[in-house]
Amino acid sequence: MRIELINTGSELLLGRVLNTHQQWICRQLADLGYEVNRQTCLADDGGQIQAAVRESLSRADLVITTGGLGPTSDDLTRNWIAQLLNRELFLDQETLAQIEQYFAQRHRTMPATAQVQAWIPAGARVLRNANGTAPGLAIEVRPNPFRGDGLPSWLILLPGPPRELRPMFSESVLPLLARELPPPEKLFSLTLKTTGLGESLVEEKIAGPLQKLVEAGLELGYCARIGEVEVRLAARGGGAESMVHLAEDLVRQLLGPLVYGVGDESLESTLVRILTERGKTIALAESCTGGMIAHRLTNMPGASAVLKCGLVTYSNESKRNFLDVTAAALNEHGAVSEMVARQMAQGARRKCRADYALSVTGIAGPGGGSESKPVGTVYVGLADDRGTAVEPHFNPFDRETFKWVTSQQALDLLRRALRA
Amino acid sequence: MRIELINTGSELLLGRVLNTHQQWICRQLADLGYEVNRQTCLADDGGQIQAAVRESLSRADLVITTGGLGPTSDDLTRNWIAQLLNRELFLDQETLAQIEQYFAQRHRTMPATAQVQAWIPAGARVLRNANGTAPGLAIEVRPNPFRGDGLPSWLILLPGPPRELRPMFSESVLPLLARELPPPEKLFSLTLKTTGLGESLVEEKIAGPLQKLVEAGLELGYCARIGEVEVRLAARGGGAESMVHLAEDLVRQLLGPLVYGVGDESLESTLVRILTERGKTIALAESCTGGMIAHRLTNMPGASAVLKCGLVTYSNESKRNFLDVTAAALNEHGAVSEMVARQMAQGARRKCRADYALSVTGIAGPGGGSESKPVGTVYVGLADDRGTAVEPHFNPFDRETFKWVTSQQALDLLRRALRA
Repeated sequence: MRIELINTGSELLLGRVLNTHQQWICRQLADLGYEVNRQTCLADDGGQIQAAVRESLSRADLVITTGGLGPTSDDLTRNWIAQLLNRELFLDQETLAQIEQYFAQRHRTMPATAQVQAWIPAGARVLRNANGTAPGLAIEVRPNPFRGDGLPSWLILLPGPPRELRPMFSESVLPLLARELPPPEKLFSLTLKTTGLGESLVEEKIAGPLQKLVEAGLELGYCARIGEVEVRLAARGGGAESMVHLAEDLVRQLLGPLVYGVGDESLESTLVRILTERGKTIALAESCTGGMIAHRLTNMPGASAVLKCGLVTYSNESKRNFLDVTAAALNEHGAVSEMVARQMAQGARRKCRADYALSVTGIAGPGGGSESKPVGTVYVGLADDRGTAVEPHFNPFDRETFKWVTSQQALDLLRRALRA
Repeated sequence: MRIELINTGSELLLGRVLNTHQQWICRQLADLGYEVNRQTCLADDGGQIQAAVRESLSRADLVITTGGLGPTSDDLTRNWIAQLLNRELFLDQETLAQIEQYFAQRHRTMPATAQVQAWIPAGARVLRNANGTAPGLAIEVRPNPFRGDGLPSWLILLPGPPRELRPMFSESVLPLLARELPPPEKLFSLTLKTTGLGESLVEEKIAGPLQKLVEAGLELGYCARIGEVEVRLAARGGGAESMVHLAEDLVRQLLGPLVYGVGDESLESTLVRILTERGKTIALAESCTGGMIAHRLTNMPGASAVLKCGLVTYSNESKRNFLDVTAAALNEHGAVSEMVARQMAQGARRKCRADYALSVTGIAGPGGGSESKPVGTVYVGLADDRGTAVEPHFNPFDRETFKWVTSQQALDLLRRALRA
């Protein structure tokens, strides 16, 4: 099966907006065993869009477009496609009623221009938009005049805003595909999230032992960024699920505590879940991560039940005032030291009366490094009822990467402690 | 002039990686007056890449590809292109020496596979890679056998990793384009960053007064996300710069303090710059933004000189302990109240001995709302030597959007105070 994706919008080719549709749609489809073969991005230009859709319909079984379905004067994809397919547009009363209802529920007057969104090419199925006014459209191009073999193709038109497109895709497009274009072979996939080792070392540990399963059809993939490596396990056809679970068991055995979660889990979601389950609380004392750890934890709903307090103690003065770090520790060891990380974690735990406290002190750069403590030097500490542990790390990266990697190391220090 | 961009990499079509090249390259080109007409994304497949490059060379004056230049077995773009253009590959000694030097400087042994990157199609210019081993390539396709009119096209091959591609683009590609393919008309553009009003209200204020300039050739564009609207002013040809500055003056006059910066400035970069210039310090007391304000400020190099301390006081207990918020205020007004925001700002300023203190207290959701204080209710406070100001806002969004918008409102409260 061949699938092509066409993203339209002049703002995309002017570089004003990041195209997040490509990754999101491709990932949704890949997880079900579909493969996208080509993605194209075009400006809001009728001739170019018609030419590209014609081209794609000549090759692909499924063509998905995004954008150009709204009410404004540059939203003309609906009309261009109707013209290309030689279909009349007609006013769909049910869609019109839904658009009217959308405005009525929000106590807003419906602008006259909104009506245009209820004009539908003949034979198109309407994909309801629960989060906006422009419906999606699904058109079976049968017979397909653009394809040498005359085989039919499906053409699906989706609105541009992600918060409209995404639910519509999950609720309407995927069921339609399951009925009309089921994947050639059902795919079962599972992603294990790991932290603590780089991609090549993860590969070194698992590729050999998994070789037999790979020869038997297991698909093994890696996706890495600094501080995190995903291991993707997939298989097709009958027995796919048991093969993937066999591989999962093997990877978990080989990587042990390096695996922290599956699928969309993150270190922060894992921690908030575990701490909530156990009724435990946490405090944070951040210096060089500057609040990023608190920010990550509080992105998780329910964080307020576990995070008692976070202190971003950039200055020595604030380390002393809020965390009781001693002048002796600061003078003798320096703010970036094992001793200060230790006192920060202990101070945060005591002053916030939390079960656990994480601390971070280091040199994010670009300034502030020295010969003995170069930019990238960092200490990560954890205090709990069993004592205090401090780990040294060296993260010689740009400032934002430094903060990200260090926050991973700190969150992971707590995660490993929670396993014990 | 027609420009096409081809991004290659199977990971892009599997949805594992976000394609950031498109936006970055398009924006660089747009800022100089070039227009990208089409962008395509393809898997690492020789036949498909050759077909797409041939297609693009049949239409475009400039074709840029990204990816597939590295040393591993799926990096074959160099070979596929040489084959398509019917050019021999030869070993370029200078490039080989640079690759060897790259490893030597890092005290690493050069793997045998790295040599493949020094094989260059005949007639190609080498674009040096200062941050990796795979050089870029620039090929003048002259005569161009794929184009009906036989006109030459430029084909530029760039490596995939952003930290290699971006400097190479700025240092080698742009100068090459300036010489070989200067933009049809020079563009002068300027982006004004605003916060505090939505896109349609910004447009309402400026579109009318700018109408005459638009008729005279000014290009006026908007790019909006919640909490921020960019106004882009551009003009072409002689007098472009003075026309844009005329428009800039008009917009600044019409929008007044809503404009906070130009170009790549952010609220946090603006604040760190101003506070540094004035030798002033800041403290933060965040509840529902959960450290995001501290995180944003500390992403800026030099933040350590202005941020004395940030307190993420999620719990009432921590508001009392660290910020001296009174039990009376919490009991009578509730944690999310004008009074508590006021006491938080005052407490943070006093306890951190900072010149300014920002405070935030609100309900991020999804839980925690009530009839009188629904999810989205938030108070933002600022304490300085002139007193304390508190602003109520209502941000009924999902959790991450809520945090972002609220952090914008808090940072902007301080920015406006610094203007006075």
